[in-house]
Amino acid sequence: MVEAAVMGAGAWGTALAKVLADAGNSVTLWTRRAELADEINATHRNPAYLGDTPLPAGIRATGDAAEALEGACTVLLGVPSQTMRSNLESWKHLIGHDATLVSLAKGIELDTLMRMSQVITQVTGADPARVAVVTGPNLAKEVADEQPAATVVACTDSGRAVALQRALSTAYFRPYTNADVIGAEIGGACKNVIALACGMAAGVGLGENTSAAIITRGLAEIMRLGIALGAKGATLAGLAGVGDLVATCTSPQSRNRTFGMRLGQGGSMESALRAAQGHVAEGATSCQSVLALASSYDVEMPLTDAVHQVCHRGLSVEQAVMLLLGRSTKPE
Amino acid sequence: MVEAAVMGAGAWGTALAKVLADAGNSVTLWTRRAELADEINATHRNPAYLGDTPLPAGIRATGDAAEALEGACTVLLGVPSQTMRSNLESWKHLIGHDATLVSLAKGIELDTLMRMSQVITQVTGADPARVAVVTGPNLAKEVADEQPAATVVACTDSGRAVALQRALSTAYFRPYTNADVIGAEIGGACKNVIALACGMAAGVGLGENTSAAIITRGLAEIMRLGIALGAKGATLAGLAGVGDLVATCTSPQSRNRTFGMRLGQGGSMESALRAAQGHVAEGATSCQSVLALASSYDVEMPLTDAVHQVCHRGLSVEQAVMLLLGRSTKPE
Repeated sequence: MVEAAVMGAGAWGTALAKVLADAGNSVTLWTRRAELADEINATHRNPAYLGDTPLPAGIRATGDAAEALEGACTVLLGVPSQTMRSNLESWKHLIGHDATLVSLAKGIELDTLMRMSQVITQVTGADPARVAVVTGPNLAKEVADEQPAATVVACTDSGRAVALQRALSTAYFRPYTNADVIGAEIGGACKNVIALACGMAAGVGLGENTSAAIITRGLAEIMRLGIALGAKGATLAGLAGVGDLVATCTSPQSRNRTFGMRLGQGGSMESALRAAQGHVAEGATSCQSVLALASSYDVEMPLTDAVHQVCHRGLSVEQAVMLLLGRSTKPE
Repeated sequence: MVEAAVMGAGAWGTALAKVLADAGNSVTLWTRRAELADEINATHRNPAYLGDTPLPAGIRATGDAAEALEGACTVLLGVPSQTMRSNLESWKHLIGHDATLVSLAKGIELDTLMRMSQVITQVTGADPARVAVVTGPNLAKEVADEQPAATVVACTDSGRAVALQRALSTAYFRPYTNADVIGAEIGGACKNVIALACGMAAGVGLGENTSAAIITRGLAEIMRLGIALGAKGATLAGLAGVGDLVATCTSPQSRNRTFGMRLGQGGSMESALRAAQGHVAEGATSCQSVLALASSYDVEMPLTDAVHQVCHRGLSVEQAVMLLLGRSTKPE
């Protein structure tokens, strides 16, 4: 049993708070709005993010970060990747000196091109061995509903990895340990761009062969980037890479796939944005940071490049398809 | 331009005959039934397998294997895996001494547990360098309809691989070369079993996290087997592995997935067979040869084993799920 703080009561933070409580740990869930904390404590629900799903009574919600972090030896960071730095700045003096810091955010920081684990060590001064990543094909709602799911717990310190694996093991949630933090982060940061490409292809009417080719060649370019950054190929062939990519690219629930479909059907970025009620698909933003990171390591990412050109340079989806098919054939 | 013979006018043989003709090669298409050859020559269609799709006029069909093989420097073997040996026995004296022999069949021979390339070299006495494999996420109908698709051309002889890549390159069909014949064969031989497992999970009502976990952990066990046999991990992370697996596991058109769904919904093997008009799903047969091959190399394949137990040992799908979730958690 561990004392855990989950910082952020979005869908995924709340679902993992439930997993931690179900696994027998003591859990405090921090939420930005104090009213939401009161509601969670009173109703054992988080209706804004997880609908009617009942939460274990043992989860204690609070709007006070100091209260949440007091005594926590495991701190799950469930805030959006572009706000990770500012949140950590205000929390760093509250975090225990030996606490394991667990990133739940999938993304690359826009200005610095840093992975989340890098942001965490830079801001808090923590030894990299204290930083872990939880990632995998995990729709929050399905985990909260106790549908069987597998995930990756990555940490360079194998003792911390196993402790976190144990803290997150339930009958329905199955964590696998991995020492490769970089690989665990790169899959999650890149997958949404490939899901956009899959959506675009479906939008212009292309079939399952094309979709499978995009997923596989997308994986190949994610692996090239990961390996250039020091990741292991096996990690990206696993749950954090293939698993998360397949789920995001094939799910009808995927916002990125849906956004890409609208572009493929001839919609402009503006009309796709309107249809998504102003929510830009994450892949449309992250294609920029992923491409910049790839270019700084001299890695070719033709699919990411094509998505970037469609979203930000006015290329049509049809032109993007022709461009990709016109590349010279080569060894796999 | 090459002189090619395609032996077998099923959906995939016919679609590749079209690709070869569209790429500017001279193509003869052998079909077991002479009437079908006459029909293809007269109508430039193969209605039994590819509906209304028009075939290039340059494809010459024949019921005479000797006529098809005469002068062919590239021979595509498009017959079912369990009949590869007997067909080759009757053709071997007709095949040119330097012809490239290309397997299109995905499977492991039941009694011998041989891969198709092994059957080909054993029966014909050909040097392994003359044997190639074409495999990937390629629904025949979509290729015939000229939907963009990518595929793998595997041959240990890089000169033959590149020649075959060139012979199969069109605006819509994109072959990648690979020297790893074993890897190219293992993905295709194992994927149907995992698709059955995906169907079973969907049949008992499990969601997308479970499906992604099955695909990814399925890939992990396919990789373990492949690597034990001498394959490269990268091949199985590519089109022949991930690509084909994803397409088969997620396609609503997949017979294996549908068959598994019926079992998951509580149907017996008998009722699933009746619903499939007596066509047993390939995975229900191949789980036996894959498992026997794995066991002879001391490789654990828990998902394949579970499918085998459901199809042949009377285990219920619910019991299989509990069994898999009850395994101890470990490193990925």
